[in-house]
Amino acid sequence: MITHPAYAIEPWRLRESGLNLDVLAQSESIFALSNGHIGWRGNLDEGEPHGLPGTYLNGLFEAHPLPYAEAGYGYPEAGQTVINVTNGKLIRLLVDDQPFDVRYGQLLAHERVLDFRTGVLRRKVEGVSPGGQGVRVRSARLVSLVQRSVAAICYELEPLDTAVRVVLQSELLANEMLPSFGGDPREAATLQAPLLSESHACGGAWASLLHRTAVSGLRLGAAMEHHLDVPSSVDVSSASFPDLGRVTITTRLEPGQRLRLVKFVAYGWSAVRSHPAVADQVAAALTAAVQTGWQGLVAEHGAYLDNFWGRADVQVEGDERVQQAVRFALFHVLQASARAEGRAIAAKGLTGPGYDGHAFWDTETFVLPVLSYTAPRAAADALRWRYSILPKALTRAAQLGLKGAVFPWRTIAGNECSGYWPASTAAFHLGADIADAVVRYISVTGDKAFEYDIGLELLAQTARLWCSLGHHDPAGGFRIDGVTGPDEYSAVADNNVYTNLMAQHNLVSAADVAQRHPDRARALNITAEEIRAWRDAAKAMVVPYDEARGVHSQAEGFTSHEIWDFDATTEKQYPLLLHFPYFDLYRKQVVKQADLVLAMHLRGEAFTTAEKTRNFAYYEALTVRDSSLSACTQAVLAAETGHLDLAYDYLTEAALLDLNDLEHNTRDGLHLASLAGTWIALVPGLAGLRERNRSVAFAPRLPVGITRLALTVCVQNSRLNVEITSTATTYRIIDGQPLSLLHDEQPLTVSPGNPISVPTLNPPTSRAPTQPLNRTPQPH
Amino acid sequence: MITHPAYAIEPWRLRESGLNLDVLAQSESIFALSNGHIGWRGNLDEGEPHGLPGTYLNGLFEAHPLPYAEAGYGYPEAGQTVINVTNGKLIRLLVDDQPFDVRYGQLLAHERVLDFRTGVLRRKVEGVSPGGQGVRVRSARLVSLVQRSVAAICYELEPLDTAVRVVLQSELLANEMLPSFGGDPREAATLQAPLLSESHACGGAWASLLHRTAVSGLRLGAAMEHHLDVPSSVDVSSASFPDLGRVTITTRLEPGQRLRLVKFVAYGWSAVRSHPAVADQVAAALTAAVQTGWQGLVAEHGAYLDNFWGRADVQVEGDERVQQAVRFALFHVLQASARAEGRAIAAKGLTGPGYDGHAFWDTETFVLPVLSYTAPRAAADALRWRYSILPKALTRAAQLGLKGAVFPWRTIAGNECSGYWPASTAAFHLGADIADAVVRYISVTGDKAFEYDIGLELLAQTARLWCSLGHHDPAGGFRIDGVTGPDEYSAVADNNVYTNLMAQHNLVSAADVAQRHPDRARALNITAEEIRAWRDAAKAMVVPYDEARGVHSQAEGFTSHEIWDFDATTEKQYPLLLHFPYFDLYRKQVVKQADLVLAMHLRGEAFTTAEKTRNFAYYEALTVRDSSLSACTQAVLAAETGHLDLAYDYLTEAALLDLNDLEHNTRDGLHLASLAGTWIALVPGLAGLRERNRSVAFAPRLPVGITRLALTVCVQNSRLNVEITSTATTYRIIDGQPLSLLHDEQPLTVSPGNPISVPTLNPPTSRAPTQPLNRTPQPH
Repeated sequence: MITHPAYAIEPWRLRESGLNLDVLAQSESIFALSNGHIGWRGNLDEGEPHGLPGTYLNGLFEAHPLPYAEAGYGYPEAGQTVINVTNGKLIRLLVDDQPFDVRYGQLLAHERVLDFRTGVLRRKVEGVSPGGQGVRVRSARLVSLVQRSVAAICYELEPLDTAVRVVLQSELLANEMLPSFGGDPREAATLQAPLLSESHACGGAWASLLHRTAVSGLRLGAAMEHHLDVPSSVDVSSASFPDLGRVTITTRLEPGQRLRLVKFVAYGWSAVRSHPAVADQVAAALTAAVQTGWQGLVAEHGAYLDNFWGRADVQVEGDERVQQAVRFALFHVLQASARAEGRAIAAKGLTGPGYDGHAFWDTETFVLPVLSYTAPRAAADALRWRYSILPKALTRAAQLGLKGAVFPWRTIAGNECSGYWPASTAAFHLGADIADAVVRYISVTGDKAFEYDIGLELLAQTARLWCSLGHHDPAGGFRIDGVTGPDEYSAVADNNVYTNLMAQHNLVSAADVAQRHPDRARALNITAEEIRAWRDAAKAMVVPYDEARGVHSQAEGFTSHEIWDFDATTEKQYPLLLHFPYFDLYRKQVVKQADLVLAMHLRGEAFTTAEKTRNFAYYEALTVRDSSLSACTQAVLAAETGHLDLAYDYLTEAALLDLNDLEHNTRDGLHLASLAGTWIALVPGLAGLRERNRSVAFAPRLPVGITRLALTVCVQNSRLNVEITSTATTYRIIDGQPLSLLHDEQPLTVSPGNPISVPTLNPPTSRAPTQPLNRTPQPH
Repeated sequence: MITHPAYAIEPWRLRESGLNLDVLAQSESIFALSNGHIGWRGNLDEGEPHGLPGTYLNGLFEAHPLPYAEAGYGYPEAGQTVINVTNGKLIRLLVDDQPFDVRYGQLLAHERVLDFRTGVLRRKVEGVSPGGQGVRVRSARLVSLVQRSVAAICYELEPLDTAVRVVLQSELLANEMLPSFGGDPREAATLQAPLLSESHACGGAWASLLHRTAVSGLRLGAAMEHHLDVPSSVDVSSASFPDLGRVTITTRLEPGQRLRLVKFVAYGWSAVRSHPAVADQVAAALTAAVQTGWQGLVAEHGAYLDNFWGRADVQVEGDERVQQAVRFALFHVLQASARAEGRAIAAKGLTGPGYDGHAFWDTETFVLPVLSYTAPRAAADALRWRYSILPKALTRAAQLGLKGAVFPWRTIAGNECSGYWPASTAAFHLGADIADAVVRYISVTGDKAFEYDIGLELLAQTARLWCSLGHHDPAGGFRIDGVTGPDEYSAVADNNVYTNLMAQHNLVSAADVAQRHPDRARALNITAEEIRAWRDAAKAMVVPYDEARGVHSQAEGFTSHEIWDFDATTEKQYPLLLHFPYFDLYRKQVVKQADLVLAMHLRGEAFTTAEKTRNFAYYEALTVRDSSLSACTQAVLAAETGHLDLAYDYLTEAALLDLNDLEHNTRDGLHLASLAGTWIALVPGLAGLRERNRSVAFAPRLPVGITRLALTVCVQNSRLNVEITSTATTYRIIDGQPLSLLHDEQPLTVSPGNPISVPTLNPPTSRAPTQPLNRTPQPH
């Protein structure tokens, strides 16, 4: 956990003063730069010390066997793991024969600032070597949102008091040694030296390395070029080796003189293109970057972000931490997705190797809602990635004896990579989560072409799965037995409410969209009979309700189980999965993460207000939040059921999860879903945003402490600004068409130039539900 | 499958004429000799060809890591695998420079006969080498039931027509290369060269090898000595190497001359004894065997078996195959257990490496009922093995957060070795199965000392498990949630009827025995309060019943599940586990093996006759018998519900499972539980034997085709003979005290010298239940 005051609270920046080596790996994740295609962890320019070096290319992975003590039919045999590719961040510095290393000599000053508006990570270091030579380094780094294959560093060096002889080694380094933390199943499989050299070259101030992965057979190239500005005579040389490209700059700097080095780095990779083709694509990207120049890269990068913030910004008055955190969150959500372009958005983005670089349902359920409203093209791209792996999902379904599509629980390239089926294959809800994201994206954007080309097929193939997975029982109910819902402390249960309600939505949506596009439906072999079957299954869907307790049962039998002995569970025994066996978690009432509560968010219309209140109270007492996919959803339902103070607590937890390393694994990468959850807690949470028939509904409520909440979302090509205070809510169209929406279920139509102000409701406060011992969220 | 007429049908022998190389591995299992301590597969004397060489010592294993694609708390980290130890069976033969090998030259005759009364495997071979030299070999082999560390071979050789120069190499061979069949999860992990040499020695006509296992650190020794009888001059020499001891005999035999070699082999192993101690114990055992001599060994071995058959024989008139099969079965059950003496009885005995040599619940539930009635000392010894691993079971329970004992689902030395918890750790019924075996043993034998010393502690520690695993729900029922019953096509379900009823019996028995022995109970910290808690839990035990369908639900919700599409399942898709994923099997109504039906056998009094009839019909239609632990139980319930013809079919299936290799894996070893099941189908099945309050009940019924069934069992130190024809049943005390028993619920008392004859009931025939398509048992 990061407990010291690590980062200054500023509305648009994350500033670290000093350098705490204990949390170096965490800060590398937090200061990671990415554009969704390339990811650079926030490693120091000189490479060491490091927590975990990391350079990632979206989709580039190595395959490895998945071992089983006892194998079973349909178990995936190969895993996929993101690998640390060629490190282009390195600029090593020798000052008078002494490597510049913050661990030696005297560190006079160290500051890193990540600016969410410019997207540039700036660093300032002043240090004196053990030999007494002082230097000041200012570096600035970006991973371009505009030129997706390019990253660049501007590195400035000056002596402090006395002249220094300096050697700079700007490098490309492959197959770095990686530390292993060991033990935690959520960590990545570490593959040592996964890259095989194919070629290396250098000349002038450039170098390039080409490698391929041994098993997955992917080819990647990295190249660098430099612009140098030195006041005195300088020697520049280059060298290359199979795993190392190096440009060496040697000069002498007098006090007052400054060396400025701009390093341009380009990456490319392909599963199919030849060695010369990949080499050329890297060289071409590098040439374009060099031509643009550092200032040009910074300028176009900033313009891209200005545009994003104009669509996405959230202003929070009264809580500066949350203000900073939501921008930090939106910035990283954008970084993970902006230029993914047909590749997955992994659970950790490209900020670290956690969860092996895999994408899960998190993306559709937590990240895509944010993107659909703030960066809809990125949302569509993410769904296009799902569409691209549909053939594999159809094959997987056939292997499992099912119809339609079974998407992989965790994957990089579309193949199932989970070695524990009760919490993966059985978690069929993923299909409905994808369908839900498709429906939301279409509803929010009105993107008809997407609906026609991609949406219907995704909806139909996931709907087909439900028809083949469930069955009509003799009493007429449509049952989905033996599946695992979002709560991973239950598994393989009958009629999980979340799964059944999401499947119902999936089935009805598929039927609706098929009927909207009969020609496309015909092309997909969707018959009237099949549409009828979808509607029949949806209509008959079993939704377990426990009459005696007056609450929905998360799955059949759940509320009859023994309640976990929370009072006998110590704080150190969380997360429970590291201290108790699955069989014991599964057979008791204990909830890892919002499951029924998530159903009440995403399928809110399926519950009465009274049911929501009772259910929320019941499941609050059972939910331990051992997953980062929980607090934001609990915030949404706390707000909806009138517990605004509790909603605020959960908002804060989601917002600070990575900034304060609450789950102790931010070192492995940021939690994209929880970052997205900061927005979810604020927008669907406090502002009450829901999709309603191609429009949106709001139910704004502010907790005491947040005096003003203003947000911008894109709805049907209009930019809508919503400004909430405790007394009034103002809806404004920034640009675009008039928009009909609901405010506390009352219809309003807002037109450009005509903002509408309406009162903000202040619901009566009731006693908030309680959580298990030691699991109450920290007060905000 | 063995489809050719492999074995002649004779009442007391298994005779193979000719040699079919396609089923060599299967016949090696079938002709395996063992005494429960040493196991020798029926490999040919000359070693090759072989299907699978095999020499096993009970309890001798190697440890290996258990790998997981995704690890979890409480997963066992190390597996244990039985290893093929030093092969002492080898007597290689060179005839005029040509290795004698049945694959070359001309095989004139080959016969093997296993005699169940003498316990000796005899072989006769006549072959002509490619060079034209003919020889006749007669060998006889035994693994002594009296001298547990000793095996011996009598080998006789004579030329057929012309003089031959012969070289015999009698060997001890360690670390034989083993074939791998691959792919089937029921197969053993093959460890190549698991033995590290510690020493070797030779001299005269003897040799010895000492080894230890690398990881488990067990030390083993093997030694051999020879008696030679040769009519002409002979040269004898010996040699030893780390993995080979060899005695070489060279001579020339004229037509009419015969060489006779007796090979004595002794084994010893220890986890704690030093190298000299183990070497000496082997040498001592060898010396005793040599002193006894071949004839002496044969004589004492035969006497041991005479005694056994006097206690255990079952006569079946009208079906010679079943007559042979039940004696084959009883012989192998005895071989697996007779001298195990504190070691486990593995699922495959010591006949092959299948299931890694592990012992499962099979032993208590299928093998121990046979032994309790026919070889009660062996039954007690098997339960003493369980008692010996009780400390490990208490530790395992604590690791899992439970009280009492959690015995390992599969193990050699007492540590859990299963890498798939839903079908192992969650199968908590094992504890109740052990308790059931304890109660049965005590009830049948009246062994008070066992009850006091061992029985109560086993019953109490298993009862404690149930109290910690289950809970009283608010409605008052005692629920056991999230467990797996015997049917491995369901898992992690609530209130499995079998588990709950067996747990109930466990709890009540523990309470009863504790109250019979208050001082012993005090010593075990069993309080009056605890006994009350056991009785309360037993009394409140939830037993799911489906009112709508009028049948018991195997577990809660089971009868609401979709019924497996049997009509779409082809014969080649069985066993289903090799062709369908677990998730699909688990969520549908399909039963691998008797589960509720087994409950109706072992807890028959918990069901009405009408319930048994309805339940049996319902579950027959769902049961696919993908396990060898099913047919015998189905035979028992078919007989009890009046479907004698069907009972006969299941009896035949159980009886021929290994003789006809019905499951295609007899090559890996015999199925001890199914062999025991032959007796179960006949005795609890057709004769209707059940335990009742320290006595026994019979309900004899004969199907058409079996004209007479006579059996002997030991009850309360009396030998009871029961002779059943279609008209009358006669009860006789062969020796011992008078015995009160029930015949068709009518009490009888039989005294020595006063047999009682009563009519055999002929129940009305009703239409037999049907099985899934392609799963109807072969008609007898």
